[in-house]
Amino acid sequence: MFRNQYDTDCITWSPAGRIHQIEYAMEAVKQGSAAVGLRSKTHALVASIKKSSNELSSYQKKIFKIDEHMGIAIAGLVPDGRVLAKYMRSECLNYRFVYDGPLQVGRLVAQVADKSQLGTQRAGHRPYGVGLLVAGYDQTGPHIFQTCPSGNFWEYHAFAIGSRSQAARTYLERRFEAFEELPLDELVMHALLSLRETLAAGAELTTSNVALGYVTAGGTFTVLEDEAVQPYLDMIGQADAPGAPGAAAQMEE
Amino acid sequence: MFRNQYDTDCITWSPAGRIHQIEYAMEAVKQGSAAVGLRSKTHALVASIKKSSNELSSYQKKIFKIDEHMGIAIAGLVPDGRVLAKYMRSECLNYRFVYDGPLQVGRLVAQVADKSQLGTQRAGHRPYGVGLLVAGYDQTGPHIFQTCPSGNFWEYHAFAIGSRSQAARTYLERRFEAFEELPLDELVMHALLSLRETLAAGAELTTSNVALGYVTAGGTFTVLEDEAVQPYLDMIGQADAPGAPGAAAQMEE
Amino acid sequence: MFRNQYDTDCITWSPAGRIHQIEYAMEAVKQGSAAVGLRSKTHALVASIKKSSNELSSYQKKIFKIDEHMGIAIAGLVPDGRVLAKYMRSECLNYRFVYDGPLQVGRLVAQVADKSQLGTQRAGHRPYGVGLLVAGYDQTGPHIFQTCPSGNFWEYHAFAIGSRSQAARTYLERRFEAFEELPLDELVMHALLSLRETLAAGAELTTSNVALGYVTAGGTFTVLEDEAVQPYLDMIGQADAPGAPGAAAQMEE
Amino acid sequence: MFRNQYDTDCITWSPAGRIHQIEYAMEAVKQGSAAVGLRSKTHALVASIKKSSNELSSYQKKIFKIDEHMGIAIAGLVPDGRVLAKYMRSECLNYRFVYDGPLQVGRLVAQVADKSQLGTQRAGHRPYGVGLLVAGYDQTGPHIFQTCPSGNFWEYHAFAIGSRSQAARTYLERRFEAFEELPLDELVMHALLSLRETLAAGAELTTSNVALGYVTAGGTFTVLEDEAVQPYLDMIGQADAPGAPGAAAQMEE
Amino acid sequence: MFRNQYDTDCITWSPAGRIHQIEYAMEAVKQGSAAVGLRSKTHALVASIKKSSNELSSYQKKIFKIDEHMGIAIAGLVPDGRVLAKYMRSECLNYRFVYDGPLQVGRLVAQVADKSQLGTQRAGHRPYGVGLLVAGYDQTGPHIFQTCPSGNFWEYHAFAIGSRSQAARTYLERRFEAFEELPLDELVMHALLSLRETLAAGAELTTSNVALGYVTAGGTFTVLEDEAVQPYLDMIGQADAPGAPGAAAQMEE
Amino acid sequence: MFRNQYDTDCITWSPAGRIHQIEYAMEAVKQGSAAVGLRSKTHALVASIKKSSNELSSYQKKIFKIDEHMGIAIAGLVPDGRVLAKYMRSECLNYRFVYDGPLQVGRLVAQVADKSQLGTQRAGHRPYGVGLLVAGYDQTGPHIFQTCPSGNFWEYHAFAIGSRSQAARTYLERRFEAFEELPLDELVMHALLSLRETLAAGAELTTSNVALGYVTAGGTFTVLEDEAVQPYLDMIGQADAPGAPGAAAQMEE
Amino acid sequence: MFRNQYDTDCITWSPAGRIHQIEYAMEAVKQGSAAVGLRSKTHALVASIKKSSNELSSYQKKIFKIDEHMGIAIAGLVPDGRVLAKYMRSECLNYRFVYDGPLQVGRLVAQVADKSQLGTQRAGHRPYGVGLLVAGYDQTGPHIFQTCPSGNFWEYHAFAIGSRSQAARTYLERRFEAFEELPLDELVMHALLSLRETLAAGAELTTSNVALGYVTAGGTFTVLEDEAVQPYLDMIGQADAPGAPGAAAQMEE
Repeated sequence: MFRNQYDTDCITWSPAGRIHQIEYAMEAVKQGSAAVGLRSKTHALVASIKKSSNELSSYQKKIFKIDEHMGIAIAGLVPDGRVLAKYMRSECLNYRFVYDGPLQVGRLVAQVADKSQLGTQRAGHRPYGVGLLVAGYDQTGPHIFQTCPSGNFWEYHAFAIGSRSQAARTYLERRFEAFEELPLDELVMHALLSLRETLAAGAELTTSNVALGYVTAGGTFTVLEDEAVQPYLDMIGQADAPGAPGAAAQMEE
Repeated sequence: MFRNQYDTDCITWSPAGRIHQIEYAMEAVKQGSAAVGLRSKTHALVASIKKSSNELSSYQKKIFKIDEHMGIAIAGLVPDGRVLAKYMRSECLNYRFVYDGPLQVGRLVAQVADKSQLGTQRAGHRPYGVGLLVAGYDQTGPHIFQTCPSGNFWEYHAFAIGSRSQAARTYLERRFEAFEELPLDELVMHALLSLRETLAAGAELTTSNVALGYVTAGGTFTVLEDEAVQPYLDMIGQADAPGAPGAAAQMEE
Repeated sequence: MFRNQYDTDCITWSPAGRIHQIEYAMEAVKQGSAAVGLRSKTHALVASIKKSSNELSSYQKKIFKIDEHMGIAIAGLVPDGRVLAKYMRSECLNYRFVYDGPLQVGRLVAQVADKSQLGTQRAGHRPYGVGLLVAGYDQTGPHIFQTCPSGNFWEYHAFAIGSRSQAARTYLERRFEAFEELPLDELVMHALLSLRETLAAGAELTTSNVALGYVTAGGTFTVLEDEAVQPYLDMIGQADAPGAPGAAAQMEE
Repeated sequence: MFRNQYDTDCITWSPAGRIHQIEYAMEAVKQGSAAVGLRSKTHALVASIKKSSNELSSYQKKIFKIDEHMGIAIAGLVPDGRVLAKYMRSECLNYRFVYDGPLQVGRLVAQVADKSQLGTQRAGHRPYGVGLLVAGYDQTGPHIFQTCPSGNFWEYHAFAIGSRSQAARTYLERRFEAFEELPLDELVMHALLSLRETLAAGAELTTSNVALGYVTAGGTFTVLEDEAVQPYLDMIGQADAPGAPGAAAQMEE
Repeated sequence: MFRNQYDTDCITWSPAGRIHQIEYAMEAVKQGSAAVGLRSKTHALVASIKKSSNELSSYQKKIFKIDEHMGIAIAGLVPDGRVLAKYMRSECLNYRFVYDGPLQVGRLVAQVADKSQLGTQRAGHRPYGVGLLVAGYDQTGPHIFQTCPSGNFWEYHAFAIGSRSQAARTYLERRFEAFEELPLDELVMHALLSLRETLAAGAELTTSNVALGYVTAGGTFTVLEDEAVQPYLDMIGQADAPGAPGAAAQMEE
Repeated sequence: MFRNQYDTDCITWSPAGRIHQIEYAMEAVKQGSAAVGLRSKTHALVASIKKSSNELSSYQKKIFKIDEHMGIAIAGLVPDGRVLAKYMRSECLNYRFVYDGPLQVGRLVAQVADKSQLGTQRAGHRPYGVGLLVAGYDQTGPHIFQTCPSGNFWEYHAFAIGSRSQAARTYLERRFEAFEELPLDELVMHALLSLRETLAAGAELTTSNVALGYVTAGGTFTVLEDEAVQPYLDMIGQADAPGAPGAAAQMEE
Repeated sequence: MFRNQYDTDCITWSPAGRIHQIEYAMEAVKQGSAAVGLRSKTHALVASIKKSSNELSSYQKKIFKIDEHMGIAIAGLVPDGRVLAKYMRSECLNYRFVYDGPLQVGRLVAQVADKSQLGTQRAGHRPYGVGLLVAGYDQTGPHIFQTCPSGNFWEYHAFAIGSRSQAARTYLERRFEAFEELPLDELVMHALLSLRETLAAGAELTTSNVALGYVTAGGTFTVLEDEAVQPYLDMIGQADAPGAPGAAAQMEE
């Protein structure tokens, strides 16, 4: 009730040169369950917390394979995320059909960002309410990108989005410089440990509420869910022993 | 009168990153008469309370057959539900025409969700006001899905939607792990018993106000209504004896 | 002045999950002059009170023949009713042209309901302000359906809509179980007696202000107006003697 | 300022089930100068008061010939009336071209009403602000119809619309039963006498401010204006003597 | 600030059955500099006051030739007037091309009025803000018509529109009956004298601020401007002597 | 905050018959830096003050050549002016292509005015915020025209628009009658002297902040900028001696 | 809350002749990180501060190569900037395809400005929220242009836009006259020194947060980033010694 009159559509500038609707859509990303992305010299990897609406339900899919060489994790409105995933798949397919090869990751990310920008400049539409972490491997190596409702995108060494993701970012900021040389297993462990930082007090990572996706050179984007995650959960159970990084991070908070 | 200014259309984000119109449409589902869905290893089944507008009227159809291998139960605005049922039938028909086989359940559910998402992102439209429970059997076995006005969808072991459905969900949560191995008859009984939980005090399940639909491998989606329901009502009359699960559930409340 | 902000168009949900404009359009039906529909094993019949705007005018048509096997009575905005009648006639005509037979009653009713639903989901339109009672006879026997501005439809044994129709419904609820076996004449009498219940104190059924339409197997939808109604009015004059059902109903009120 | 929030467009229902914009458009008809229509067994006739905007101007045309067998008198916004007259002429012309005969009066009236209904159901338009009295003669005899901005239409023995038309209706209600057998001359006199009832105190019917149009079997719609009206004005000068119907009507008021 | 809520667009009726935007557009005509039109048995003539925006500027054209047999004077928004003049010229040209003769004056005026009506019935447009006085000579003789933003049109013996035109109308009302037999010269004098009535105190007709246009049988619409007007100004200098009609009119005010 | 409710779009009339948005757009012209236009028997000339946004920037172009025989000076929103200049060039080009000669100046000005009028009559657009002074020479001699956002246009002997242009108009009004016979050099001097009147106290005409454009019979529209203006600035340095017209004008203020 | 009613869309003029939405969009440019452009006789150069959203992220690209002979630096909404960069590339490509040569810089800048103007004149769109500095070299030599959301553009010797750019402009104003003759190296140093003026207290130019792009005759637009910038940073480390221009400028503030 006490807001300004410039914040109900995305084609109105505020006197301060801001478009509030874009900023509000960014909030939707912050409400979504957390996702992290990180990369080594050889792998790009995304992981996310899956939510189930209910004890009876399956966990909602938050990791989507886009093409052989690429996948995404989403945070925010899942239906909006599905729309973008569909678009990305279709672009990759078309590219393969025409050029018989994988669409470069950064190029597709720029296309998604341009598509998102459209929703911020026309009446009768709204900005998407979802952020993507894109993990891909192409001729330029492994990449982690983030796209925003605003149409911005960024490349990262490692990043986290979604609810309570600040804790994960703190975890990653302290360690990302060492990721470059890590083998996949350790990369997965860091993904899980950083995700664990985003959990509410008392919550635990389980084979049900976490999913991972990774890709490497010439490989195919692989999703790890359910039992496939167990070995890694076991590992971070060890890693979490006193003196291990995750515990340290918790204590520091 | 005392609401915010961001909740009258579905293309406006609130400062907190929410789209209130989507949430309000979800309320419509909660107003509809209850529906439940559950599955065993061999069967997927939906059941719903039918309402009659009046003593003179027939009971309004809430279970729709979509294709040989699939049917739905709806809660919320019935006319919106009919529109979606029509769309689903048409998609199945087209698929059969092209591929000469049944459209996979999860794939159709995703399409329905994408169609629902559209209504949440364009001016001049509104989100659908209906939730679907989809029961289907395809090459991947039996499935129960729920679709929402938001464009979200979830797979369930067992679930209940609509008015007072929390009581049914509580019933199901306590027992669903045993459903896997049950024969159809017992599955039907659990469906009826969970539906009964949603009735107002003094109300009874009758052959008129309840309908069921189920499907099994290679079978055809079968709707049980009117007298066909009687045997199962008789069974839960027995089942409802002291010590039986339904009675227990009532006592626990 | 003291209403909420969610009730001025049909694409806005209220926080309680309601679309007020649909409900307001339903009110228009309640303002129209009353109509009743009832059926026996052999006949389906609708009747309605006709209004004249003025002593000088003819009485406005409220019963419309749709096809050989079907007719409607309307309550609410007559021009909206004419639009729907036109649509129904055109659908029947097309069906006969293609299949050389009568369009099934329930199927046409569903189409009308779908058409009505459209008016509840798009900006720039409004819900229709008319309710229909459809009387038809097809291979599945005689039917009475009601359609609503909301896009809902119901099948009835007997029903009444429009202004003061509650009194007629009370009449019908008490007797409808006996209608199944009645000959046409008695069915007509019950239609008239129930309509009479809706009249204001002092008003009378006359050959001018009442019209009937009925259809039977293999027959054609027949409208009774003006002098053709006289014999039945005479009959209910008799029937209205002490001990007769109509009188009883009046006393009971 | 103190009106409700439901009355500024024609696609919004009020909570009481009314569309106020339609009702307001009906008011425009009541503001127009009066028109009357009446019929005998052999003739249909319309007459109207013509207004001049100014002493210098000609009197504005209010009677329009539509086709050989039909004409109209209008009350309300004259430009809207011209649009409808144009439509009616074009429909008659098309009909004659295809069927080589006159378009039935009631059928054209229904088309005009349907066209008017359209203006009450779409955003971006407004209801027409004009009422028509249609006089026609076809194979079913002479007819007088009225069409309204709402899309309603009525058939009449005799009727009057426009400003102060209640007085004319009172005149007609008392006498219309005798019209059936009257010759044209007397019908004209009754038209003039009823029109005179609508004049403000002190105003007079003159050859300038009144026009008539009539049609009979096999005849052509004939407009009487200017000097052609004089003989009839002379007659009602006589008729207006004590004991004559017009005078009586004045005394009764 | 204290106006009603029904007067900001032309598709909203006020509760009293008025469309205020049409009435407001009519005001624009009253703001324009005055124009008069008059006719004799042989000539139709329009004249108008020309305004210059500034001492440095030429005087703005207010008399437009439409075709050989027709011309107009405008009052109100000149750009709107130019749009209508363009339309009229194009219609005349098309008619000449098809029928090789002049388009009848009244028929073109009706077309202009229909075009104006369109602007009063659609959202997203506004009524034209200009009134036309049309002078033409066709097979039915000389004519003076006025068209209004409302879509109304009127034929006149003589008329005046625009700012302070009431004084000119008073002048014309007293004398128009004699115009029928006047030669062109005297008709021009009356035009000038009536225009002079509309001038502010102290203002004078000059060769710069007045223009005339006339047409006669078989002649061509002729515009008199600048020095061509001088002889007539000289004449009314004489005519304005004591006892002359113009002076008299001034004294009577 | 205290304005009326009729001034936020160009399709709403105020009760007084005005369209405020057109008037507000006219204000934009008054905010632009000044431009003057004047003509002799042989030349038409425009001149304008150029603004630089900053000490670092070039001066923004305000004089545009349209065709060999025509150029414009603009005041108001420069981007709107560029759009109109582009349109004018394109019209001239088309004309030359079809008729192999120059488009008449007045005719193109009328087209620009008609294009401007469009922006005042449709929802979803705004009036242009720019005024043009057009200098051209065609078979009818030299011309200076002004076009306005309203769609009005005027021909002038000499004129000035833009900020503080009243002072320039006063200068021109006192001298324009002598311009007819002046050679180009003196015409340029008067242009500069009148422009100087519009400068703020202390400001000076320089080779950077002033530009001129002129055209003569058979010549080509020539723009004088930068050093080319110096000789004329030198001349008015002389002309500005005591007793010279410019000085006189300053003293009179 | 206390703003006027004319500032929420770009098709509404304020009473003072301003379009506030254009001005608000200009504010967005002022919020962006700073960019500078400057040129010598032989080179055109742009440089900008790059921002990273986070310690983990790469720095967002603010310098874009458009074609061989041209590049841009942007300030404001980066996604809007990408849209314009894409447009510019496509125009250059088309030009090369048709004419086999480089599109003239000023001509492309005018096209971008015209495209920007469109967003200021139509409902349903918004002005772009980005300013461009364009550096190009064509047959007319090196150029630095600025384009604005308003559709204005300016040519500069040297300029700075974005947040705290006033300090950089002050730096450039004092020195730009000497740039003409400088070699590329010194031009780069001035770019960096002026950019440094825009940094917040304590911030430093680093190889990560600054990027440069330059072009010379016959050369190709070259972007200097990361280590390639180091030599120049080293140079200004030297240049920043006491008595050097940068230090002087800091002291003066």
